[in-house]
Amino acid sequence: MYVSVSRLRVEPDHSAELIDAFRSRAHLVEAFDGVEGIEVWQSSTDPSEVLMVSHWRDRAAFSAYMESREHRLSHDRIDHALAETIVLERLEHLTGYEVVAR
Amino acid sequence: MYVSVSRLRVEPDHSAELIDAFRSRAHLVEAFDGVEGIEVWQSSTDPSEVLMVSHWRDRAAFSAYMESREHRLSHDRIDHALAETIVLERLEHLTGYEVVAR
Repeated sequence: MYVSVSRLRVEPDHSAELIDAFRSRAHLVEAFDGVEGIEVWQSSTDPSEVLMVSHWRDRAAFSAYMESREHRLSHDRIDHALAETIVLERLEHLTGYEVVAR
Repeated sequence: MYVSVSRLRVEPDHSAELIDAFRSRAHLVEAFDGVEGIEVWQSSTDPSEVLMVSHWRDRAAFSAYMESREHRLSHDRIDHALAETIVLERLEHLTGYEVVAR
């Protein structure tokens, strides 16, 4: 199993907006082959740190999603003003992990 | 829901040993009130980065476990030589997150 972690840095008021946007998302990714769960984590000590964490069958499934129409559509649905804020404020960092034990 | 992330930095050969030790653990934590899953992640790009990720009902459940006999017993079971290696090599960093959306 593969985990993708995308680390966003957003101002506290915008992080609430970002979380709301995620909660009302179209859930296109959940229908994609190989996805096993998506969560949004907010740091207990620093609300500006928000992580998007997704579990996949393997790295190939994640890569296929990243190149898919569904991924593009998900991003197109984000409110334009919010997207610009995130882009301006974020220090995005995408990391991948293998789940080696559970 | 609360997530605890413990980041360990171990030499590649010792990371395999650490993962084996986790796989053969006593599973004491799984019986603890409030735990909802434990995973070990190994970075795809840097095998020396190993994360222990655990999900909890809430932060209070995690705190109760950290102070428990079960937690102490789990650590006492780790091979002494391995434990010393991890202690010497690690740059441990413990962070907590609220799961704000799924």
